[in-house]
Amino acid sequence: MNIGIIGVGLIGGSLALSAREHIPDVILYGSNRSEANLQKSLDLGLIDHKLEENLIQQMDVILIAIPVDAALDRLIDLLDEVNDNALIIDFGSTKSAICQHIALHSKRGQFLATHPIAGTEYAGPEAALPNLFGDKIQILCETERTRPDLLEWAQDWFRKMGMNLREMDPIEHDQHIAYVSHLSHISSYMLGKTVMEKEKDHATVFDMAGSGFASTVRLAKSAPHMWIPIFKQNQQNIIETLTEYINNLNQFKNLLEAGKFEELHEQIAEINGIRQILDGITKTKN
Amino acid sequence: MNIGIIGVGLIGGSLALSAREHIPDVILYGSNRSEANLQKSLDLGLIDHKLEENLIQQMDVILIAIPVDAALDRLIDLLDEVNDNALIIDFGSTKSAICQHIALHSKRGQFLATHPIAGTEYAGPEAALPNLFGDKIQILCETERTRPDLLEWAQDWFRKMGMNLREMDPIEHDQHIAYVSHLSHISSYMLGKTVMEKEKDHATVFDMAGSGFASTVRLAKSAPHMWIPIFKQNQQNIIETLTEYINNLNQFKNLLEAGKFEELHEQIAEINGIRQILDGITKTKN
Repeated sequence: MNIGIIGVGLIGGSLALSAREHIPDVILYGSNRSEANLQKSLDLGLIDHKLEENLIQQMDVILIAIPVDAALDRLIDLLDEVNDNALIIDFGSTKSAICQHIALHSKRGQFLATHPIAGTEYAGPEAALPNLFGDKIQILCETERTRPDLLEWAQDWFRKMGMNLREMDPIEHDQHIAYVSHLSHISSYMLGKTVMEKEKDHATVFDMAGSGFASTVRLAKSAPHMWIPIFKQNQQNIIETLTEYINNLNQFKNLLEAGKFEELHEQIAEINGIRQILDGITKTKN
Repeated sequence: MNIGIIGVGLIGGSLALSAREHIPDVILYGSNRSEANLQKSLDLGLIDHKLEENLIQQMDVILIAIPVDAALDRLIDLLDEVNDNALIIDFGSTKSAICQHIALHSKRGQFLATHPIAGTEYAGPEAALPNLFGDKIQILCETERTRPDLLEWAQDWFRKMGMNLREMDPIEHDQHIAYVSHLSHISSYMLGKTVMEKEKDHATVFDMAGSGFASTVRLAKSAPHMWIPIFKQNQQNIIETLTEYINNLNQFKNLLEAGKFEELHEQIAEINGIRQILDGITKTKN
């Protein structure tokens, strides 16, 4: 079986490792925007061969793991080109735009839109991890529009990886993911920015910042070439979450300025309820 | 040597473990607001005896590890009561108020104000960790006002624990710590609040939230009885950091609404520079 991976980075490289582990006799082909990173993914053994354009027709499955704007750009051409039994799966963080983009394509049945809730703040083939997807949620969108035999193959592979499958409407996906992923990134970026602006002398930040700060700004390391396209595609939902977040911060600041510490206490006691939710996440997905 | 610990929780309990490891023939006495937790700290072997009021005079060292408002309330009485060679060390997250509170006390030389940059989001004696302070920064304020022999004893113990000592003015401490600790907690609390408000159905949050979300809202588990007094004592500095953070978020939102993605890209690329700072923190402080 031939699998082509468009974008052998953190996600694509981890998919390569999972394919190697769970799919018998797989031969892995890869492409990458950066020739240097493509060479690295060959050197690391993530892929067996470069995925040249003239090999697309020989692929049984194509995995798309590139920034969400680039995925939109490539998808139509890829669908046009693949053979009639090939499956194309995308793994991006936004789902509405891509599902809409492909809705009327004659080969729509050969496409599956997914979003694995897995990742780290690192990028590139060296960031690939052998069990990145184990015990993680895999969101599948519009499964009724994917050809049943192809869908079944994909679900089977994801289950072998240890993923927990959830079906979700792409519009609902984009609304919810704005809250639990996209907003976290922005809060983290802006926290990093605020501290960096203040503490021009980095040595002082370094001296006084502990693991709590490191945890809240960890996502601020995430690369803009991945995240700007996400912000672009999910612009409206993100603006909504950001508005609510800023309102909550302003409300907190007003209470603090007014010295209403009892109200702040009640508010925080309620927020502590997130402990149960988080313990669940850590336990099942870590 | 007798050491009394006021507040045998995460910090006090971890100090007990460090004292047991590094101070020969130490006998540990403890007190706690909660009788149940005090009993737990005895059961866990963190302390040897309850610190009854009538034993205060027999203590060689007293460690204060209670919320910062309670610390202010207790400190004068404790200083009045201790014998003339005892040292009182406080470990709270704010330093200006306590240093000012004690400035004119006749036994000022028997007091040392510190802030260990160490902790977790958990509380109580079960949260105590044997090596919580290893490789962590210990900030010392106004060391010139502590009696040299007592200061030397404390520094020696902290160094044995593996702490890296830094001297800092208490006002400067409170300004800086607002950025790298207090603001992180508020951004985390408000992120938790925003998501909880939206997702009344917790199952959905749970399904879609990954390790990135868990990381940014980890501090939202922190207890209000610890944090409200900190917000109270460091009110002005926190309001300042919060204002800057909200400004940055509003600016980000405006750029997003205006579709200025190139500017956002540049901004994030610059923020990525925090990677070096964070790698430093992780390496030296974990």
